[in-house]
Amino acid sequence: MSDLLIRNIRPMGAETQDILIRAGRIAAIGKDLAAGEAPVEDGAGAIAIPTLVEAHTHLDKTVWGMPWYTGRKGGDLQALIDNERNGRIPLGLDVHRQSMRHAIRLIENGTGHIRSHVDIDTDHGLTLLEGKMATRAALADGVDIQIVAFPQSGLMNRPGTYELMDEALAMGADVVGGLDPSSMDRDPKGSLDALFRLAGKHGKPIDIHLHEHGELGAFTLEEIIARTLAHGMQGKVGVSHCFCLGMSDPLRVGPLMEAVAKADIRIFTTGHPSAEVPSLQDMRAMGIKVGMGCDGIRDTWGPWGQPDMLHRARIVGMKNRMRRDDELELLLDVASRGGAEAMGLEAPGLQPGGPGDLTLVAGETLAHAVVEETPRPLVVKRGLVVARAGRLTLPGVVMP
Amino acid sequence: MSDLLIRNIRPMGAETQDILIRAGRIAAIGKDLAAGEAPVEDGAGAIAIPTLVEAHTHLDKTVWGMPWYTGRKGGDLQALIDNERNGRIPLGLDVHRQSMRHAIRLIENGTGHIRSHVDIDTDHGLTLLEGKMATRAALADGVDIQIVAFPQSGLMNRPGTYELMDEALAMGADVVGGLDPSSMDRDPKGSLDALFRLAGKHGKPIDIHLHEHGELGAFTLEEIIARTLAHGMQGKVGVSHCFCLGMSDPLRVGPLMEAVAKADIRIFTTGHPSAEVPSLQDMRAMGIKVGMGCDGIRDTWGPWGQPDMLHRARIVGMKNRMRRDDELELLLDVASRGGAEAMGLEAPGLQPGGPGDLTLVAGETLAHAVVEETPRPLVVKRGLVVARAGRLTLPGVVMP
Repeated sequence: MSDLLIRNIRPMGAETQDILIRAGRIAAIGKDLAAGEAPVEDGAGAIAIPTLVEAHTHLDKTVWGMPWYTGRKGGDLQALIDNERNGRIPLGLDVHRQSMRHAIRLIENGTGHIRSHVDIDTDHGLTLLEGKMATRAALADGVDIQIVAFPQSGLMNRPGTYELMDEALAMGADVVGGLDPSSMDRDPKGSLDALFRLAGKHGKPIDIHLHEHGELGAFTLEEIIARTLAHGMQGKVGVSHCFCLGMSDPLRVGPLMEAVAKADIRIFTTGHPSAEVPSLQDMRAMGIKVGMGCDGIRDTWGPWGQPDMLHRARIVGMKNRMRRDDELELLLDVASRGGAEAMGLEAPGLQPGGPGDLTLVAGETLAHAVVEETPRPLVVKRGLVVARAGRLTLPGVVMP
Repeated sequence: MSDLLIRNIRPMGAETQDILIRAGRIAAIGKDLAAGEAPVEDGAGAIAIPTLVEAHTHLDKTVWGMPWYTGRKGGDLQALIDNERNGRIPLGLDVHRQSMRHAIRLIENGTGHIRSHVDIDTDHGLTLLEGKMATRAALADGVDIQIVAFPQSGLMNRPGTYELMDEALAMGADVVGGLDPSSMDRDPKGSLDALFRLAGKHGKPIDIHLHEHGELGAFTLEEIIARTLAHGMQGKVGVSHCFCLGMSDPLRVGPLMEAVAKADIRIFTTGHPSAEVPSLQDMRAMGIKVGMGCDGIRDTWGPWGQPDMLHRARIVGMKNRMRRDDELELLLDVASRGGAEAMGLEAPGLQPGGPGDLTLVAGETLAHAVVEETPRPLVVKRGLVVARAGRLTLPGVVMP
């Protein structure tokens, strides 16, 4: 909760002004503001935007900073899940260490909020959650981390997982996670009833990975919509990926999107390059609140990605055939303010009274900033400078 | 045609050795080679690969290094083509200057061969070709540039274009280009007959942009195959994009790919993120020679991309759902040796007698090198060091 005066910045690409942060919140935006006792930074004319929001990732899965991982597999989702679950211990995939590496790179790249899914399974119990909670505490001044208790290996088909999920939510996980109630859990009714029961018991929101394609995904999504309405959980349920909304039949997708909007279900997209994905433009036009995430970065599943929301915004933008400046501005909004809104957080924005979270970005305009591949000049969280020129400056960080 | 000894490098990721280049060609690969009079570079244990190959781009279209371009359009292909053709002069899109900026970044990123399409239309005549030929000459010691005379605004539907194409090929364009004989030229027979006539007259190969999707693209592709066989032009015809081979029906795609392989038609893919694209793995398994290109980079069409073949390899790899090390090695082969082979060049490779073209790449293994986003430590063309740590060192380059 710091004070800071940042001079000579262009809020959202507008004309050059100063932003004064007091006790972690924006106190004033204007010309030639007086610093008082606050430290002063010169923004050198850079554009300022709210901090970026990583709305769908798995911090602890990355092998970033470890020797090159050669054990990646082909095959279906189950093969990838098993390869990871069985490989974590032999590989020395230390949850806290790897989550720190991943989250620090996200901070350095201007990220102020992260929603990270952590595997809850009967092999690892709650050890992975404990590691991720250590990371959340270690970086508390630099980034806000929401933890989703995620039954990656299945809920209904692995007895004991429900009880572990229950414990995880009592311990401090923020969100109830789910995975493909039909295709993976093979029991959509049982799986969804269990998730909504956990959510009701703990008073926590839901975020379900839905990889199911086409009509199967649409069926499961309809079941999610029905329960969201029945439980009065509008605004509290998220669906990640939701590939089924990428179906090509507009007569099927349109009404489904309308129902999603009406139930105020939030969609988290990664713009998956090799899958059908829901149109970002269509979802926003329908009034659906949408967040964006990088998903796994260089993990046992795949080698791809960078821990950088602008990198992901480019992937999502290319996938959605966005080209014009107004489309790139929409993309940037989803990667920052919109993602926080979709996660149910106070919507950040550069206005007096708002959170003192911002990042400077390179570029002449907001659209230009999306494509320019350079480090973020300055990242500020609650008025504290947490990174400068792409390097962490958050004090007191001890690597495990 | 220089001499050079590079010590302490790992050819294709193998154990550490030296590579000796004499008069621009690899003279020896081994341990503790004697330099003689040759300059010596220390590779610091980096992996060496053949130079990368940009097999499909439009060097002169980029606005790289110019003020942010705000005039991008939505709409169909024709709208994008018209926006560019009408905008070149008002925008001050200087062909030579922009081609230099683009090609230099490609060299800095380890590229040794470029195939670049240049627009031939009745508005600009041959001025764009002249600009690109100036770039080719200016960078002749740093990179080999193949120029495709490309009727971007249409051949059959813009009278006078055929004659300009004829002149362009006489002036020094290397390849006969074409564009969507059915969907854009609206006369597949006339368009293809004209292209094959030009190719026959000038004894030059063909490279046709085929954006046509599904059955229309398949029909045009069948016509291209038929003419390739009829004219005995096996190995001399390329098809860029070829989205129709990304159709989902394997019973249609399989036999088409087989016919493409049999006619030795080369496919150039960009892994277009928002279109169906032919499977890289399937094409290679069928024996089709495949090259890869970045296509336009930050031009009037779209804001995306980097002039870097490893950046493009990542896009193509994600699109093709490649994950395993062997898949990443295949990807790297298409982005280097394979691309040159598809372009009809002497297949480069790190062996004695081969061209003295190589780039060092960061990473522990070949697969790792594909995903690591760092500058190329050293780039060598015919034994000359042309870039170091991502910066051009080619002597005598004068920017227009």
